[in-house]
Amino acid sequence: MEFHIKDPGLAEKGRLRIEWAAMDMPVLARIREEFARERPLSGIRIGACLHVTTETANLALTLKAGGASVALCASNPLSTQDDVAAALVAEGIPVFAIRGEDRETYYAHIKAVLDTRPHLTMDDGADLISTLHAERPEQAAEVLAGTEETTTGVIRLRAMARDGALRYPVIAVNDALTKHLFDNRYGTGQSTIDGILRATNRLLAGSIFVVAGYGWCGRGLALRARGMGARVIVTEVDPLKALEAVMDGFEVMPMEEAAERGDFFCTVTGDLAVIRKEHFLRMKDGAIVANSGHFNVELDLEGLREISERVRRIRDHVEEYTLKNGRRIYVLAEGRLVNLAAAEGHPSAVMDMSFANQALCCAWLVKHASELEKKVYPVPEEIDRRVAEMKLNAMGIRIDRLTPEQEKYLSSWEMGT
Amino acid sequence: MEFHIKDPGLAEKGRLRIEWAAMDMPVLARIREEFARERPLSGIRIGACLHVTTETANLALTLKAGGASVALCASNPLSTQDDVAAALVAEGIPVFAIRGEDRETYYAHIKAVLDTRPHLTMDDGADLISTLHAERPEQAAEVLAGTEETTTGVIRLRAMARDGALRYPVIAVNDALTKHLFDNRYGTGQSTIDGILRATNRLLAGSIFVVAGYGWCGRGLALRARGMGARVIVTEVDPLKALEAVMDGFEVMPMEEAAERGDFFCTVTGDLAVIRKEHFLRMKDGAIVANSGHFNVELDLEGLREISERVRRIRDHVEEYTLKNGRRIYVLAEGRLVNLAAAEGHPSAVMDMSFANQALCCAWLVKHASELEKKVYPVPEEIDRRVAEMKLNAMGIRIDRLTPEQEKYLSSWEMGT
Amino acid sequence: MEFHIKDPGLAEKGRLRIEWAAMDMPVLARIREEFARERPLSGIRIGACLHVTTETANLALTLKAGGASVALCASNPLSTQDDVAAALVAEGIPVFAIRGEDRETYYAHIKAVLDTRPHLTMDDGADLISTLHAERPEQAAEVLAGTEETTTGVIRLRAMARDGALRYPVIAVNDALTKHLFDNRYGTGQSTIDGILRATNRLLAGSIFVVAGYGWCGRGLALRARGMGARVIVTEVDPLKALEAVMDGFEVMPMEEAAERGDFFCTVTGDLAVIRKEHFLRMKDGAIVANSGHFNVELDLEGLREISERVRRIRDHVEEYTLKNGRRIYVLAEGRLVNLAAAEGHPSAVMDMSFANQALCCAWLVKHASELEKKVYPVPEEIDRRVAEMKLNAMGIRIDRLTPEQEKYLSSWEMGT
Amino acid sequence: MEFHIKDPGLAEKGRLRIEWAAMDMPVLARIREEFARERPLSGIRIGACLHVTTETANLALTLKAGGASVALCASNPLSTQDDVAAALVAEGIPVFAIRGEDRETYYAHIKAVLDTRPHLTMDDGADLISTLHAERPEQAAEVLAGTEETTTGVIRLRAMARDGALRYPVIAVNDALTKHLFDNRYGTGQSTIDGILRATNRLLAGSIFVVAGYGWCGRGLALRARGMGARVIVTEVDPLKALEAVMDGFEVMPMEEAAERGDFFCTVTGDLAVIRKEHFLRMKDGAIVANSGHFNVELDLEGLREISERVRRIRDHVEEYTLKNGRRIYVLAEGRLVNLAAAEGHPSAVMDMSFANQALCCAWLVKHASELEKKVYPVPEEIDRRVAEMKLNAMGIRIDRLTPEQEKYLSSWEMGT
Repeated sequence: MEFHIKDPGLAEKGRLRIEWAAMDMPVLARIREEFARERPLSGIRIGACLHVTTETANLALTLKAGGASVALCASNPLSTQDDVAAALVAEGIPVFAIRGEDRETYYAHIKAVLDTRPHLTMDDGADLISTLHAERPEQAAEVLAGTEETTTGVIRLRAMARDGALRYPVIAVNDALTKHLFDNRYGTGQSTIDGILRATNRLLAGSIFVVAGYGWCGRGLALRARGMGARVIVTEVDPLKALEAVMDGFEVMPMEEAAERGDFFCTVTGDLAVIRKEHFLRMKDGAIVANSGHFNVELDLEGLREISERVRRIRDHVEEYTLKNGRRIYVLAEGRLVNLAAAEGHPSAVMDMSFANQALCCAWLVKHASELEKKVYPVPEEIDRRVAEMKLNAMGIRIDRLTPEQEKYLSSWEMGT
Repeated sequence: MEFHIKDPGLAEKGRLRIEWAAMDMPVLARIREEFARERPLSGIRIGACLHVTTETANLALTLKAGGASVALCASNPLSTQDDVAAALVAEGIPVFAIRGEDRETYYAHIKAVLDTRPHLTMDDGADLISTLHAERPEQAAEVLAGTEETTTGVIRLRAMARDGALRYPVIAVNDALTKHLFDNRYGTGQSTIDGILRATNRLLAGSIFVVAGYGWCGRGLALRARGMGARVIVTEVDPLKALEAVMDGFEVMPMEEAAERGDFFCTVTGDLAVIRKEHFLRMKDGAIVANSGHFNVELDLEGLREISERVRRIRDHVEEYTLKNGRRIYVLAEGRLVNLAAAEGHPSAVMDMSFANQALCCAWLVKHASELEKKVYPVPEEIDRRVAEMKLNAMGIRIDRLTPEQEKYLSSWEMGT
Repeated sequence: MEFHIKDPGLAEKGRLRIEWAAMDMPVLARIREEFARERPLSGIRIGACLHVTTETANLALTLKAGGASVALCASNPLSTQDDVAAALVAEGIPVFAIRGEDRETYYAHIKAVLDTRPHLTMDDGADLISTLHAERPEQAAEVLAGTEETTTGVIRLRAMARDGALRYPVIAVNDALTKHLFDNRYGTGQSTIDGILRATNRLLAGSIFVVAGYGWCGRGLALRARGMGARVIVTEVDPLKALEAVMDGFEVMPMEEAAERGDFFCTVTGDLAVIRKEHFLRMKDGAIVANSGHFNVELDLEGLREISERVRRIRDHVEEYTLKNGRRIYVLAEGRLVNLAAAEGHPSAVMDMSFANQALCCAWLVKHASELEKKVYPVPEEIDRRVAEMKLNAMGIRIDRLTPEQEKYLSSWEMGT
Repeated sequence: MEFHIKDPGLAEKGRLRIEWAAMDMPVLARIREEFARERPLSGIRIGACLHVTTETANLALTLKAGGASVALCASNPLSTQDDVAAALVAEGIPVFAIRGEDRETYYAHIKAVLDTRPHLTMDDGADLISTLHAERPEQAAEVLAGTEETTTGVIRLRAMARDGALRYPVIAVNDALTKHLFDNRYGTGQSTIDGILRATNRLLAGSIFVVAGYGWCGRGLALRARGMGARVIVTEVDPLKALEAVMDGFEVMPMEEAAERGDFFCTVTGDLAVIRKEHFLRMKDGAIVANSGHFNVELDLEGLREISERVRRIRDHVEEYTLKNGRRIYVLAEGRLVNLAAAEGHPSAVMDMSFANQALCCAWLVKHASELEKKVYPVPEEIDRRVAEMKLNAMGIRIDRLTPEQEKYLSSWEMGT
């Protein structure tokens, strides 16, 4: 078995941590049992490009239990947990990922996964599928379908489909309600706060925290920052979301103005250059700046470097930029996803639902891919609903059921005032 | 001019209160100025069946400024503000509505509006359009289109369209983001708390507050009840919404269990018999029960009466049911919309957006109705966005704009990690 | 029996409302049962100057059950509930209070109570005890002791004691933890929001709400305003409290700046002229201004009138001041306690604790007054603790007890790291 | 210079981290400038037993700037940051502290500090002063006074004073409002959540979080746990605090019941054996248990071991206890202060205020110790107030001042209704 990881000796530490994550992933555990019985992925090769974390390990082991051969590379050069990679290799799953790998190695690893000639691709940010389309178009014919985990990737894939460039169907796992309503909101919310605290140990209570973007990630983050006692300012480009932020009790203003007030800044927009030179120039001495959007393009660090006189690392994950105006700005995790780089990414409990969707979608695609067009599809509603039911069940929570009379009422239109 | 109201002498009081509402409806005010200049509704007869409140009055005056003839009846027998009805009549708008009117009068008033042979119908709960379809099908041919304000009505209309029974196109104003995200959430949230406090003057802090339904209204109400210091329990039938409620930090359980714990109960489901005999029997002595869903069907009051030994009014809007088991249950506003019956309904600021959508949709329908099928349509996206922009503007809030580089990035798929 | 009330015919309505309050006053109910058995106030005349509300009625009935003769006048000319006054008279308790009475009648009523020659005085704002000291100093010798309900009154009495002017001992009921931690915080918080909503029906979500003063009342109000979705600004004169407000996530600034930003303003400081001419002049068109501090001195309304061109009532409890600069300012309830004037004052559940302290203090004073000096005393700790225990008990809440080992640990100093 | 630290080579890393902390300690920075000018501690030897963190380093450097000779040992064997110890030694301050030192070394280090014959002792938990009293009573005569940082220590010292055992005056820095209202509430709140997240990476949203103790630490922690989306249960022994927790919207119950429900447990009581065998036996599989009280006595880990079949470390700072009943319980940081052991303790911004009090109290004691008795004293009010003013100032926040008319009103008692 070929693989490329940092140190196979880390396997035992990784194994324990994967076990720790498993304890908080009861839905995936139940699917794994079912897969082991029914083997719905028998004979299927899956190429996965995901953050190499303890939760991903549990997904990979679930897919394997279902009969698949899985090969795994990283979807971000900084997010690999080397002990997890080692543990997966020890379980017979080829991994190509080393924390902090350079760009060249990163793409070499993607190609190593493509070399396994997958029937299904699984992406978190669309780098695997993009590379396949750009450099191995001939392989597309072998692929039944793909899945994509994240908003950013879905945006890219929709653009490809619109341009007629997409060569096989893809399920936007991100769009499952049990994925983005939970992972983006509660997962990103908590893990971003966690990353910022680990990186800085600064007090949030009484501080001014600027959140750029009020999508699901942004509102999760705003809620948690407020929950920790910060005063939150939101910046947006969409008037509807801006208005929701106002009604939720947040202050809304352009980044230009927010720049002068914030103690903390965090971008979660999915767009590039959200905080730029002109904003950095207005910030207070000591401002702390991070990104929790998928790609490290949201902060214009090149622009920041141009207006700086000195850059030094003052603490793990904290770079101090001393501007020519004398003020100091602190950038966390080099502008990469602060929740993965400085903390451990989403907690297992939310990844449980995201990855339950991934696993069930793989099984569904094996049966249904041939019926699909070369487009981006939503997660089938019954999968989404089933994941929610399994999660409530695992938490020991019961809910009401509609009575027959209630069902009838909802579908009728003749009952009056 | 024909009309039917309680007392024309209340006009001056109504006029002042309409003015008071107008101060917090800046978007509608701007549309009114625009309408007065451009007269987009010239020659159009509008039949409106809405809660007769100060906000509705401002909508009616806006439509009139646009050139329309408006006739108004109530969408709920208990929600009419008689002084507002009087003030509208004084302004030359025929109103058919008296607070507390009986069922017969209620429908007579609806028919009086239909007698004006409207080109556009405007509903809040679909009673006007239902009556027209049931009793005056021949008039349908004269109607260009309709609008519907509320979730409950939209459910009825969709069912009609599905059955091929709908005779003209309708815009679901409720589905505008600037409507349901604001009106249902922030409007219902606040006004329901307001209604419960006015009716009871009970302390919410430290109490247990059961919210049935976690749609937009339910989450607005849950948020505000918690904001007032209550411990909130949510009941749901949809596993996804139930899971969201859990993750939002609420306790979730079936009504059967919640019944034993709650101090306050409020239904906001859009369905019938949500709290039934078997639930009332389990409640604590002194439990307070209300409904804030559109129709007064959510509480099974007939069932409650059957298990009661005595019913008396103990306070305005509060009926005491003494059960055969000796416990006392307090029902607010006879199970009708507690926010309208015991308080004043949604604050003007949210109705501003709902009614801005109504007004702009009317103007849009005059131009485009002929291109539409006999279906339920969403509010055109540009109207929704424009309302949001106008509201932010009125609040003095500026937001960011995408740079050309950012727009390009969002629509491209080739920029990598 | 002498009395002076508006209309004895309102007694039945009042009786029902007193019963309604009683249901949420279980601690007082238990004390009433105990008093009826033990008659600790036998032969004692009590003169009470309190807000004449349903809760006060329950206190009066409890004192009467304990054997006392009680005479009651109002502690604020606007807060009397005339139906409650009637119901008390029907129960044989002389009341001297009419809602909206003028200054002269107000003091005449105080004197009517003094005419009953009380052994104990009970105040809410110290008007009864002040009048006795100023105009009937000779009666002081007959008085065993007094109690005082509110912060403002305690400040006055402490000043009197400091000057050697106090002629008998007084218990500062306000200082009981079970009083001010609950009544001031949760009671004032909720009832002030309630009063503002009833008076205005304005949307709090997305608004800017300025709270002047961050004592217990202020923090209760700030918490609730935020809980309703407002963005809260706090003004303070004490740096410690200001810093707490900052750390609690509120914006803190001088009134001068806050004046330009607020949509709502509410004073809860206990001091005078907190919002003055220079502040009114900076307010936005449409600003809403209220007071929830004890006396109507916190808003400088005389100053406001001087800079206004027109004053009119636009809605119950809402006066519109049109300034010479063209902007309109809306003053609620003429600057009197907005929670009592526009709503119903504190909910029964908090008054339950305040008045349980009052009742138990009366019984305690009958036994112990002779041992006291002419000073202001705190509520005896055992009473405070007992009230808390009774309240938890009534709510069905159990708590832990220290083990003997834990008690020992807490009092030792030799157990090490 | 004598010292005992892990590795002098860590000095540069420590220096940068101390600099990082200094940026968020502006009050201490200003005192340091003042001290450097005025040298109020000239010739004074200070023995300090504190957590050896970056914030303590800044305090030590401030005292040194004021002219003092400072010797430092750890107040907890697990909380020392070895790089900080190295950096202080490099600055000429003798440190005796090694992270993870055993009990014997811990006390040897305390004695090494006593060997420097301090004029002032500075404690965090009273171990230095206890050792001095127990083993070097003769040295007490050389000591002018002491200070104590924490609740737990103050309880011990008060017990000593009550028994007549205290040999010199001590200032309870913990009791400064600018200390305990901020440090205990906002500091412990955030850093405990931080420690639990670093140790576990578990999702708080939707979980049940049990907080034992509702003192300042407990309410800070409860607030933050709720702010992160958890449902919070509080346990208490004091009925007043229990009632406050209820009114704050938390569920209150005995630990016996809470044990069955919680996903997370954290003790902050200052007492011992708060979670005991009988509680562990009722917990759910997977329960996570931590302590954030000063001493590691709050969890009865010996009891837990007795009912366990296996103990293993599953993750840094996480010990898995498999009970004989098959369930697994996870204990964080071996029951020691989770915020210091698994995270970095209080953020600098709160320690800024605590340590500003410490520094100013040292200077004050040098002047005033001779006037004091052998008792526990509060921080002088003017110091407390000055720290608050300096902090607001450093944050750029201005507040109101009383007008002369307002001051007069507050001290008068003759102005009426």
